[in-house]
Parts: sequence; structure tokens; C-alpha cells
Amino acid sequence: MSASIFDGFLTTPEAAAVFSDVAVAQAMFDFEAALARAQAAEHVIPAAAATAIAGVCRAQLYDLAAMVAASGRAGSLAIPLVKELTRTVALFDTDSAGFVHWGSTSQDVIDTAMALCTKRALALIDAQLAALAGHLLTLAEHHADTPVLARTLLQPALVTSFGLKCANWAAPVVRARARLREAASRAIALQLGGAAGTLSAMGERAPQIARRMAEELQLTLPPTSWHTQRDEWVRLGCEVAVCVGSLGKIGTDLALMAQGEIAELAEPAGAGRGGSSTMPNKRNPVSAMVAIAASHRTPMRAAALLGTMAQPHERGLGEWQAELAEWPGLYLSAHGAAHALAEAFAGLQVDARRMRRNIDGLGGAVYAEAASMVMGTGIGRAQAHELMQRLTREAHTQGRELGDLVAQAIASDAKLRERVDAAAVARCFNAETAVRSAAALARRLTGELRAALRA
Amino acid sequence: MSASIFDGFLTTPEAAAVFSDVAVAQAMFDFEAALARAQAAEHVIPAAAATAIAGVCRAQLYDLAAMVAASGRAGSLAIPLVKELTRTVALFDTDSAGFVHWGSTSQDVIDTAMALCTKRALALIDAQLAALAGHLLTLAEHHADTPVLARTLLQPALVTSFGLKCANWAAPVVRARARLREAASRAIALQLGGAAGTLSAMGERAPQIARRMAEELQLTLPPTSWHTQRDEWVRLGCEVAVCVGSLGKIGTDLALMAQGEIAELAEPAGAGRGGSSTMPNKRNPVSAMVAIAASHRTPMRAAALLGTMAQPHERGLGEWQAELAEWPGLYLSAHGAAHALAEAFAGLQVDARRMRRNIDGLGGAVYAEAASMVMGTGIGRAQAHELMQRLTREAHTQGRELGDLVAQAIASDAKLRERVDAAAVARCFNAETAVRSAAALARRLTGELRAALRA
Amino acid sequence: MSASIFDGFLTTPEAAAVFSDVAVAQAMFDFEAALARAQAAEHVIPAAAATAIAGVCRAQLYDLAAMVAASGRAGSLAIPLVKELTRTVALFDTDSAGFVHWGSTSQDVIDTAMALCTKRALALIDAQLAALAGHLLTLAEHHADTPVLARTLLQPALVTSFGLKCANWAAPVVRARARLREAASRAIALQLGGAAGTLSAMGERAPQIARRMAEELQLTLPPTSWHTQRDEWVRLGCEVAVCVGSLGKIGTDLALMAQGEIAELAEPAGAGRGGSSTMPNKRNPVSAMVAIAASHRTPMRAAALLGTMAQPHERGLGEWQAELAEWPGLYLSAHGAAHALAEAFAGLQVDARRMRRNIDGLGGAVYAEAASMVMGTGIGRAQAHELMQRLTREAHTQGRELGDLVAQAIASDAKLRERVDAAAVARCFNAETAVRSAAALARRLTGELRAALRA
Amino acid sequence: MSASIFDGFLTTPEAAAVFSDVAVAQAMFDFEAALARAQAAEHVIPAAAATAIAGVCRAQLYDLAAMVAASGRAGSLAIPLVKELTRTVALFDTDSAGFVHWGSTSQDVIDTAMALCTKRALALIDAQLAALAGHLLTLAEHHADTPVLARTLLQPALVTSFGLKCANWAAPVVRARARLREAASRAIALQLGGAAGTLSAMGERAPQIARRMAEELQLTLPPTSWHTQRDEWVRLGCEVAVCVGSLGKIGTDLALMAQGEIAELAEPAGAGRGGSSTMPNKRNPVSAMVAIAASHRTPMRAAALLGTMAQPHERGLGEWQAELAEWPGLYLSAHGAAHALAEAFAGLQVDARRMRRNIDGLGGAVYAEAASMVMGTGIGRAQAHELMQRLTREAHTQGRELGDLVAQAIASDAKLRERVDAAAVARCFNAETAVRSAAALARRLTGELRAALRA
Repeated sequence: MSASIFDGFLTTPEAAAVFSDVAVAQAMFDFEAALARAQAAEHVIPAAAATAIAGVCRAQLYDLAAMVAASGRAGSLAIPLVKELTRTVALFDTDSAGFVHWGSTSQDVIDTAMALCTKRALALIDAQLAALAGHLLTLAEHHADTPVLARTLLQPALVTSFGLKCANWAAPVVRARARLREAASRAIALQLGGAAGTLSAMGERAPQIARRMAEELQLTLPPTSWHTQRDEWVRLGCEVAVCVGSLGKIGTDLALMAQGEIAELAEPAGAGRGGSSTMPNKRNPVSAMVAIAASHRTPMRAAALLGTMAQPHERGLGEWQAELAEWPGLYLSAHGAAHALAEAFAGLQVDARRMRRNIDGLGGAVYAEAASMVMGTGIGRAQAHELMQRLTREAHTQGRELGDLVAQAIASDAKLRERVDAAAVARCFNAETAVRSAAALARRLTGELRAALRA
Repeated sequence: MSASIFDGFLTTPEAAAVFSDVAVAQAMFDFEAALARAQAAEHVIPAAAATAIAGVCRAQLYDLAAMVAASGRAGSLAIPLVKELTRTVALFDTDSAGFVHWGSTSQDVIDTAMALCTKRALALIDAQLAALAGHLLTLAEHHADTPVLARTLLQPALVTSFGLKCANWAAPVVRARARLREAASRAIALQLGGAAGTLSAMGERAPQIARRMAEELQLTLPPTSWHTQRDEWVRLGCEVAVCVGSLGKIGTDLALMAQGEIAELAEPAGAGRGGSSTMPNKRNPVSAMVAIAASHRTPMRAAALLGTMAQPHERGLGEWQAELAEWPGLYLSAHGAAHALAEAFAGLQVDARRMRRNIDGLGGAVYAEAASMVMGTGIGRAQAHELMQRLTREAHTQGRELGDLVAQAIASDAKLRERVDAAAVARCFNAETAVRSAAALARRLTGELRAALRA
Repeated sequence: MSASIFDGFLTTPEAAAVFSDVAVAQAMFDFEAALARAQAAEHVIPAAAATAIAGVCRAQLYDLAAMVAASGRAGSLAIPLVKELTRTVALFDTDSAGFVHWGSTSQDVIDTAMALCTKRALALIDAQLAALAGHLLTLAEHHADTPVLARTLLQPALVTSFGLKCANWAAPVVRARARLREAASRAIALQLGGAAGTLSAMGERAPQIARRMAEELQLTLPPTSWHTQRDEWVRLGCEVAVCVGSLGKIGTDLALMAQGEIAELAEPAGAGRGGSSTMPNKRNPVSAMVAIAASHRTPMRAAALLGTMAQPHERGLGEWQAELAEWPGLYLSAHGAAHALAEAFAGLQVDARRMRRNIDGLGGAVYAEAASMVMGTGIGRAQAHELMQRLTREAHTQGRELGDLVAQAIASDAKLRERVDAAAVARCFNAETAVRSAAALARRLTGELRAALRA
Repeated sequence: MSASIFDGFLTTPEAAAVFSDVAVAQAMFDFEAALARAQAAEHVIPAAAATAIAGVCRAQLYDLAAMVAASGRAGSLAIPLVKELTRTVALFDTDSAGFVHWGSTSQDVIDTAMALCTKRALALIDAQLAALAGHLLTLAEHHADTPVLARTLLQPALVTSFGLKCANWAAPVVRARARLREAASRAIALQLGGAAGTLSAMGERAPQIARRMAEELQLTLPPTSWHTQRDEWVRLGCEVAVCVGSLGKIGTDLALMAQGEIAELAEPAGAGRGGSSTMPNKRNPVSAMVAIAASHRTPMRAAALLGTMAQPHERGLGEWQAELAEWPGLYLSAHGAAHALAEAFAGLQVDARRMRRNIDGLGGAVYAEAASMVMGTGIGRAQAHELMQRLTREAHTQGRELGDLVAQAIASDAKLRERVDAAAVARCFNAETAVRSAAALARRLTGELRAALRA
């Protein structure tokens, strides 16, 4: 199904393949084959029927485009697929044809197929998250002691450690992997309920059939069918959206730090990477772009899933169909973003000297809080804050170093001299000192994340 | 770009074709050809170059899949497209190759191409809206006097006219056409700004070039480029979402009135239409389904567009790319929904007898308000309301007709007999009487809408 | 902060109180008191300062409205609050005033206060979910054998058990409680990072201070501050939205089953409950209304949270502030919906006879699948499906019972007579038989859920 | 209704007052008074009743908190309000009490009240938009010739004019005013339909009553009631969201240009404006913050409105109530954002020297496209692009001026010397030259916008 040519560079060919028409159709056939085999094993249908059915459950035997076209009138892709499967079985074995899709329903085959495809998508995403986290932790280790500006409300604030920034980026990625696995273990489940979720047409062996199918298809066996109880499924979707949210945060920070005037980071260069159709000087942060684009799209996908949860009675009318159509986009965006960032951070260009230059360029203002704290022990926090605010303004206006102004202010005021440790204040105006607590935090956090990543 | 097999039956092949890879690419080539021709006409590039360029601006000459693949690294589809176009022109004419894409930028070609495709999509949608409105007005005319239950908060309320219901469905459809045209006249505009929206590389003839291009491509000429001023564009997107919201309302009402226990309406029957993969008795309202599914998806698409409006500086980083990718879905959903409903209402099965039966089945409760109003003139609105509430409850509990109970209550109470016109109250308990004001409203509204639709 | 008079009846006074101005401000004061005490215990500030500070950390001492007004200019509520607290401490003890908010930052106090309030909101929600689940399971037990129509795509499908419907409603409610607790155990965490998340101003005792504060405030101690790593926090928000999604599903089903023409369920009656300002006959399902309204609002709240996750660098500019403002609405809606449904299901009116009448009114069509399955073993599934489809249509057109037509069809066709067990087919046309598999499922599921609810 | 203390500084007291409980209630009373007067003028109710009713239609006479509390059970605020109004009229005049709310319905009074309040909110927003546009155009005029970096994908691109940036910010603001007025002229309409939109209880004078009411209340008279046809209403909501999207763009650019390392713009300073609770050096862009926060919230509000459009039959169950509750937030955010930006741009600090310094700091790279275009006329665009890309990289690596490298490259290559006008290339490396086309554009656009703003 052709959606938008502009989706292409926001995802990956691998993720797109997972939800391709043929992949989804094959997963539907896998359901039908597993159903037949399980029913034969439980003596609900003849063993010969299972063999006949499973033998033609191969998507490449069918005209998928025609099925998709027919699904419009039918209101479900399962209807033409089951019809064609039945017709094909009948070519070889008329009796067996009657046992195709026995006791099942459209939603059983479609939901199970989506679970199968989603499982593969999650494996792809997991691998990229692991790679990205690995790169981030390597940077965190390498740059634990590298001073860089901390910025709050898009304004320079204090000095922090670039290693801590990397560890802070890595933490939600490591958590996302764990949470996605947890959510998947609940949501990637067999769907088997029959026409109205009662399994009435499958007889007493229904539980055993379900157990066999879940085992063959490597899916969780849910307590019952979940035709219109979408909570675990939507939880998984939200989990993907949260993951993309964290990736969007990384992409945003990367883009901000790669701005020409900041230039602390740059995405790896490479032939054709991030050029411009007209400006020879451009090197655009295209990985950040992919992550940011994803973070603009997935909140709405999650909202769409949440908004379709009120599926009436035993099968939705429009809600389920909308959910199905919205679902793959989440995974395509997530894999696109994780892959793009993993690539960017694998070859990230870090300019530690520029980081230092950006700190120094602020004339000591970023040491104001530390100096204020030291002075606060002597003259009270509020007064210290006010004094530093005044001196910071003067330093800015006069284009002077704040450290010099502060030293001068202490020296020229007897009361300050008495109550404030001038040497301790002077020590604040130093990036190596300023980075220390952040560096320690970076090391501890990185160690914990390494361990979690290995687990 | 393959999105989801489950998008297939929620849109139409026509709408999908409008935004297909080849259609978008061709529109991009159309931009490049128009640019070259306009620049030649203004003597900015040689006439021979324009001829050479325009001659190979045909999408079928190029390997689109390779371009899409390359767009990932480049960060924009325009970059490989311009590169391949340049290479192809050079095969025939090295000198002219240098004039490809002269002074323009990626966003110029992509936004203009999207405007061109969107214009076609809107034409498709407009036609279906017109058809749907026509069918609805025909039903409105035919059923102006047909009594049907009005339902509020999903509870029976009063008697209204089925014609009025149809006219009320039609009104927003008629308005949507007008508003979409208005929004399109502002938003379906040429994009031409050059690298940073200044047209600096195109020289003094830039305004003339833009005028020529807008004329050739039949697009609105905007006051200036709108690279990161997306308001008119997003307004158009919101307009489509509003249109789908109104279609979703129609689909919801249709589905509710087609419920087995209400059965006042049914979608047209037909081979393969709305069947079940397992239940022979099913006739599912698949057109309503498509409209409802669309109405669950488009609010999020609109939100995504709105959420990407803060495109920084002179070109977005991720916001624009997300907008591009979200855009076509709106139109695919809108055309799917309009088409599905137009089909359903073209052959709608209206069961006026069942409508009447559903009224009668309520034992006169729906006449309670009218009777209460008549009695209110005699005994005050509050007392009348309370009396009728009590009698309605009794009628319900005893399984009796409310009209009988009311008559009896008046007859047996001297004060009521005196102050209330019993005959006038009795006249309220009649569907033909009850429908009258609604029927008059239906006729007036239908006339106005017919006129507007013709305009 | 006054938002909308129309929020009032969509939530509860209890939930509103949790996030009231005074409650949030008090939670901010609780943070400041806990901070001072922990810092005193770790000898970072004097014990006397902690006593002085904690002594005036009572919201009722302050002019909250003035603080909220001042927060506009300051860009944060914490700034005026800390200023007023400092001023107030100084009234009694000038020296101690300097130790107010020592080494902390606006986001520390605000995020921690929100965690404290959210914890209370979750306790309220948990209690209502438990009550609702309890009522649903009681109904499930009582009505395990009650036949009711299963409906798919808003059309009658098969017979199921009303007890199974109740158990299916209960399952996501029981899961929501467990998942909310799990998410809360991760997200309801202390925020303590200082100006840029490095705790640089708090010295080496920072970890011990954090541990003491988490213990006193009964909050989770996170691995590090989470100023711009909002994943666990947003996960919790999504979890609330998923919960509301499941409540919206219950409300929708309730509203549909309470429709006048279906009338299988009714919300409890009561003075002033669900009346109309004009129609004496109305009894509106107001609990369903509240749940449905919530389910329309919370997906967007969740999307807003997800959309603000890309908080740049060490503190967001607008993103965090938007998140804060969107946050309480989720909980207000969730508690409103859970409370409304708990009330509705506590006194739900179930009309089992009407359920049966609605089944019988369909002339046997709902037994078509079961009969088709039995016949399928003899003549093949496809042929059986086609035959039943034809007979169902005839039954509908002729207004006859499907069971009679089927019996007649078998009797009059030698081949059918031979291959199909007519008695077995006839047994299908019976609600008690049809409900059996659903009833068994209901019993098993209800037992499991009772156990889970007790856990 | 208390929502969130953190809403406070994201809106204004004026906008909050417009939708306060008392303002909405008064607007409901205004409806009831207008209804009574119009019905008396049309002799539908006695003149004395109108006088009695209108006389007590003052919100301050009633216990609003009790009404809001009662609205929960009733399912609508109109029910307790009408009840209390009736009771109050009856205190003075029993007969007249029966004519309160005559023939009307809850939704009539509530929707009309919302239209009245919304009209006032739009007037507030309009004034701020006009102020903001005025400030922006003044800046545009003043800075038409001021060179500033154009940045694409958050990377330096070319030189543009700061005046053009201002004019580009102003354009959507000017358009928003016009579009909001247009949308309001359609949507700010009387609601009058009676219980089911048929006006059945109001008799033949219904159209005249509606006309009189629209006139008295200064509202648009719609073709019919719009109880469940919300398209014009939601269109208006979307229009507000589009407006906020454009404001968010301005806020984002402002915040980016105010970054410490860019420092081209700063919000006005002032006591208490944008400070930090801990860092004396901070001056946070709090106006940008408010606009950005708004732009994160309004897309979801618009989506919520769009998502509630499928209001079933003649009155929604949950959808309408959710819409009502979501509605005011849009306007509160919009006014907050417009007001904040108007304040910021009234006193904006523009550092033109820093703008120039940021251009110069890039070593000529931003002139690469211009130089490439000039060279392209000689050696072809592709070759020129490649040569400039190489030289730009060299300039960057060697820390040299691109202009020098280019001059040297031409001088040292005979073929280039021959085909390229070295002097013309040299002229490109100059900010005053580079800004020219943008300056012209700025002047033209500013003139057009001034005229439109005056209109």
C-alpha cells in the first residue's frame, strides 16, 4: 500500500519489510497453517486436512493485490484471503477445503499476524537501541571529565560533564529496551476467540488448540481472546512512543549542539550525507532530523491507538480497522530513529576544545551559582544571590570576567572579606573544578547502565 | 513506500495514485521544467537549457527506488532527484546541465510538488462530497415527512423527520466543499524562495519567474515563499480533518441506525459486501466502517501538522519532514470516507415502517415533552414536567401507553380538567403531528442546500 | 486556576482537591522542609535552619494567588514560593533564611511536588478501579449463564454470556491496577538534581541527602535526577490513558446496551440522575457519558506528554511547562470515569429477559454460524456457509424462523439428509446451548480475575 | 473548577476571566433572559413572564458551586441552573416560573453561552495579535537592511535580512487575525433547536424568536441549530490552533536566537523577569517559553475537538461534554502566547553587531552558494557546487577565509580564470551585498502587511 514517498527516508528498508504486504499476508497464512495443525493434533479436523492446508499457506502462491482490492468490499482482508486459501486447497483436495479457518474469525488471523510481524519489528528496534546505548556509554566513559555547558531553558547555566550528558541520553534507551521486552511479553499474544470471542465453534478442545498454536507461533498465550480488550496491545504501542520520545530528546540535543555557533558536536561526514541541493557549505544533521521527525509523529500514533480503544461489544466498527492501519507507522518511525542515531553516535565528532571555548566565552557567568553557594554560607543565600546577580550583570555589560569582579568586590568590602572565603570563591571559577561532581555522577551512572545493558 | 496493508481498504486506488511515488516524482519534475522554462523566458538561463531540461523531466526515465534509497543519506528526496536530472541532461547537453534547479532549493521543488498532488486529491474529494451531498438531499426531499426517533445521549427523545436528519447530514458536507475550495485557493501555492527564502540566487527577475511558474503550474502565487510559514498549508489540512469529522458523524449515525435492534437503515447489499469470514448471517456496514475509521485517524494527522508548525529559522529539521510524511494520509482517509459514504447513500435502504415501529414501541414516551408543553400553559412548566415524569415512569413500569395514562390523569383530577386542554394534549400523541415542525425545517434546509450545492 | 466550568462534572471533588493550588503548594513546601531536614541531618546546613524552615512550610501561611500571579514574570512558580519562604523564615531567623532551597532548583521542588500529588491521585483511582472490578466480577458470577447477543461491527453476531461480557470488561480494569502500581513504583520518584542535574551545589553528601528525602517523602529514589529524562514519568501518564481507554470501552458498551431499542442495561435511577431539562421521559446514562468523555480527552493528554519529551539540554523551555499543565487532567479524567462507572455498576439494572427477547427477535440468525459448522462437517465449510447465507436471507425476507427453514431444507434434499445430522443442527437453535462455551469461559476468567484482584 | 496551578503563568488573568465559572453562568443567564424576551415579543409567553425571568438572570444571585456539584448527577449544568432560575422566579411570581427555558434545551443554553464567552476571548486575542504584528512590522522596517544568518536545518545557510525575518513572523499573525474573524463570523452563532433540534415546542414563531435572540445577543443566526453538526465550531477551534502554531514558530526562533552562543536577540529585562531560583546569571526567555508551551498543547486540543465531532444522532453522549471541557484551554493558551510575545517584541533587544559577528565567524561559508551561482554560469552548476564544497571543507579545516581560498583557486587555475569572473565572485563575499535581495523582499512584504493590518 503506497502511503508517502516521504516516509522512505524516515524509516529503514528492514522495518518496512517487516510490515510489507507480503510479510503480513504470510503471517496470516502462518496463522491458518498453525490453526489447522493444532486442530488436527487435537482431532478436531482430519490430519489430511491440516497437511493440505498448511501445504498452500505460502503468500507467494497468491495474488495479494487482488486480495487487498477485494478487502474493500468485504470490510476485512481476512475474507478474501480465507476464500482464496479455501479455493486453493480445494484444487488439490475438496474435502480438506471445508476445514480451512475452522471455527476462527477474521480478527483472529489478522491480530495474530500483526503480533507476529510486530515481534520481528521489536527485534530490529531492540538491536538498534542496544547499539545506540553502547555508543553512548562509550562516549560517556571517554568524556566523563570533559567539561561542557549545561544549558537550561536554552540558556547557559552551569558546567557539567559531557560524559554525564551521554549517560543521561543512554539511561532512557537502556530502560526502553527493558520496558519494551516486558510489554511485548504481555502483548505479543495469540488471538483466538472465534466469531465472538467464545470459541464456541471449536468445541471443548479449544484451550488445547490455543496452547498448541501459541507454542508453534512462539506467542504468549493470553487468558482469553482480546478482540475488543486492547489494553496490553495499546500499552505496547505507547511503550514504543515513549521510546521514540527519548530518541527525539537525543536528536534535539544533538541538533542544538551541532548548530554552527555552538559546534560542539557534528554528525559523521560521508559522501552524500547531509548535503544541500544548493548550498555547498551545508552539512546537515540528518540523523537528528530523522529522530526529531519521528518524535513529531509517534505521539499522534499513540493517541490514535488510545482513541480507538472503545471498540464496541465483541468487534470494533472502524476503531479496530483504524488501529490496524496506524500500528506499523509507530515501528517504522522507531526503527528509523534508533538506526539513524546509532549511526550518528557510532561516528560522532566531539569537539571538546570547542566545548571549553563555549564555557570560557561566557566570562565566568556559569560559575556564578557555585560562587553564590560558597558566599551564601557566609552572608546568606539570598544576599549572595542578589550580589552575584548584580556582578554578573556588570560583568556582562562591561565585558569583563566575572571572577575578577567578584574578587574585587570581596577585596573592597570589609564585611564580605570577613564573612566570605575569597580563596574558596576563586576556586569556583574553574571548569575542572566545576565538572567534578558531574564527572562522579557520570561514572556511577555509566557503570550501572553498562551492567543493565549486558543483562 | 509500503506502509500498511490495512490502509488499502480505508482509501481508494484513485487517491493512492495521486500521492504515489511516481506521481510525486513527476510533480517534482514538473516543477523543474516550469522553473527552467520561466527562467529562460526571463533570460536568466539560455532557452536551449530550458528545452534540454524540460525534455527529460519525465519520471519514467528514472530509477525512483534508487532515488528514495539515496534520499536517506541526503536528507531530502530533492537532492538525488536534482542530481539524476542534472546527470541525464548532461548526457545530451553538458552546458545545459549546469542550469538545472537554478537558484532553487529542495524545499521549493518538494513543496510545489506536494501542492500539485494535493490539488488533484482535492478534486477527487470534491467530486465525492458533491455526490454524497446529492444523495443525502434526495433522501431529505423524499423523507421530509417520514417520522423517525430523534435520540439524545443515545436515548429516545422526540419524534423528528428522517428528511431533517438527512438534511442535517448534508449541511456540513456542502459547507466542507465550499471551505475546502476557499482554503485551497490560499494554500495550493507555488513554493519558490531559493536556499533561504530570499530568492537571492535568482536575481532581479525572481518575481517574474515566480509569476510565470504559478501560471504554468496553475498554482496560487503567494506573497512570498512559505518555507517555514506553514499556516495556510496547515489550515488546509485542518479543513480536510474537519470534513472527515463531519463524515465520521454520518458514518456513526448510519451504523447506529443499522444496528439489528433498530434496523431503520441498511447499507446496500451486494456480492461480497460486508460479509463475515465465519457468520453467514452478517451484513456489516462497511461504508460506515471506513468513515468511522477515517474519523479516528484524521484528528491525529491534523495534530501532527499543527505540532510541526514551529519550523525553526528558514527550514525545519525534522518538523518539515514529518509534515510531508503525514500529509497524504489526510487525503487518503478523506477520499476513502467520502467515497464509501457516497456509495452507501446512493443505495441506502430506508425502512420507514421500522422507524414508525420504533416510535410506537416506546409507548408514547416520546410525546411526553410536547404534552408537557401543552399542559405547562395551564399548570406551569415545572409541575407539568413533574407530572409527566411520574406518568412516564408508570407507563413504563405497567407497560401501558402514556397517552392513555395522561388522558386518565386529566379526567380523574378536577383541577387538571379545568386548567388543561385534554383534547390538545391527546393530539400530541401522534407521530404525524409530532413530525410537522421538523418536516418544515427539513424542507427549508434542503432547499437552501440544493441551491448552495448547485453554486 | 480556573479552567472550565464544564470540567466539574467530568471529575470528582476528591481528585480535584489532590491537584488544587493549595495541595500542590503544600507539596512544594513539603519538599523544602524535607530538603532542609535531610541537609541538616547530613550536616550540610545547621540543624536550627532546618527547624526554622520546616516550621513555616505550611501553605496556609502564604498568599498563593499572589505567588501564581508572580510566577508569570518569573517563569516558574518555584521562584516566588522560594522567595516568600525565605522572607518568612527571615522574619524569625535571618541566618536560617539563607539555607532555604539550599543547592536545589525550581524543577526539583516542582517535580517532587507533582510526584507527591500524583501518588495521592493514584490511590484514589486505585480504589475506584477495585470497586468497579468488584462489581463487574459479581455481575460476571451472577450472569455466567445468561444468554445475551454478541455483536460485531455493531451487528448481531452470536449468542454469548452476559457474565463473559462482564468478565471481559473487568479484565483490563484488574490489569490497569497492577500496571499502574508498577509504573508508579518507577515514576513516583524524588527529583533532586540542583541547577543542572549535577548536584554540584550540594557537595559530597548529595546521595545521602537524596536517600533521606526519598524516605521521608515516601518516594522512589531514582538512579539520578530526571529533569529532562521524562520517560518513566510519561510512561505513567500513558498508563493512565490506557486505563481510561478501557473504561471508555465499558462506558461505550453500557451506553449501547442501554439504548431504548436494546434496553438490556440501565444505569441506576435516582433523584436528579440523568434527567433532561425539557423531556420528562429521559433517563440518560450519565455514568457512561463521563467515561466516554474521559476517553475522548485522555488520548490527547497522553500525546501532549509524549510530544513534550524532547526537553532540550538540562531543562525544557516550554516543553516541561506544558507537561506540568497537562498532567493533572489525566488523573482528573481517570478518577471521574472510574468513579462514575463504579457507581453505575454498583446499581446496574440488568434485564435478562430483554436480552433473551433481543436474541429471539432475530429469528434464529445468530445460530447460523453454529448450524453452519455442524453442517460443514458433512458438506464442507464453504458450501455450508453459502447455504446458510441463502437461508438466512430467505428467513429475513419471509419473516420466518431460520431454524424452521433449515430443518425444511435438510428434509427436502436427499443429499443433505444423508450427509448432515439434522438433529444436531436443530440443537444449535437454542440460546441455552449456544451460551455454554461462553459460560464456561466466563467462569474460568472470573475466577482468575477474583484471585488477581485479591492479590 | 480548579485544573492546574501550572496553567496560571501560561495564560492571562483576562482570558481566564472570560471562561470563569461566573462568566459562563452569566452567559447562560443572558441566554435565558434573551429567550424570554424574544418569546414575549412574539407573544409566545406573557410579557410579565419575560420581565420576571430577565429580572433574576444575574449569576451573582445564585450558588454556582452548588450548581456545578449538582451538574454531576444531572449530566448537564443547564439542569440545575434552569431549576434554580425557575425556583427563583417562582419566589416572586409563580405563574411566570412556568415559562422559564420555554421550549429550549440544555444544549441551547450551554452552546450559546460558550459562543458568547468565546466572542470575548477572540476580542482579547485579536488585540494582542494586532499589537504583536505592529511590533514585528516596526522591527521589520527598522532592520530591513540588517544582515543576519539564515539558518536551515539548524545550520548556517546564507545571509538574509533581519527585517525579512520579522516580516515573515508577522505575515501569519496578520493572516491569523483575518482568518479568525472570518471563522468567528460563521461559528459564533446562536444555538436554538429545542430538545431535538426541531424547535417543535416553540411553535410557528420559532424563526422569529431565533432572529430576535441573535440580534439581542449579537450572534450569527445559523441556518438551523447545530447541536451535533459541529463543523463551523471546530473550524474556529482549529483556526485558533493554527494561530498558536504560528506563535510557537516565533517563540522557537526567538529562543534559538537568544541562546548564549548566538545572542542576537534577548527578551526585555525587568525585575523578576526570567530569573532562576538558584542561578544568578540566568535571564530566561519566558515569553518564548509561554509561546512554545502553548504550541505543545493546542494541537492536542484541536485533535480533541476533531475527535469529538461524531456526536451521535441529535445530542452527543460524552463527545459534546468533552468538547465543552476542552474548548476554553485553546483560548487561554492562545491569549497567553500572543500576550507574552507582544510583550517580548515590544521591548526586544536586537544585537545587530552580534548578528554580523555570527556571520563573519563562519569564515565566508555562507557566501558559498552565491559564489557557486556566479561560478556556475561559467563552469556549470554541478562543477561549481563540487568545487565550492571542496573549498568550503578546506577553509573549515584550515581555519581560513573561504573568500581567500576561492580567489586563490581561480587565480591558480587557467581554465577557471578564463571562464569565471573573479571580481564578481569576490563581490559575493560581503554581507551588505548578500542582504540586498532579502532587504527588498522585506520592504515589499512589510508594506503589504502594514496595509493588511490597517484594514
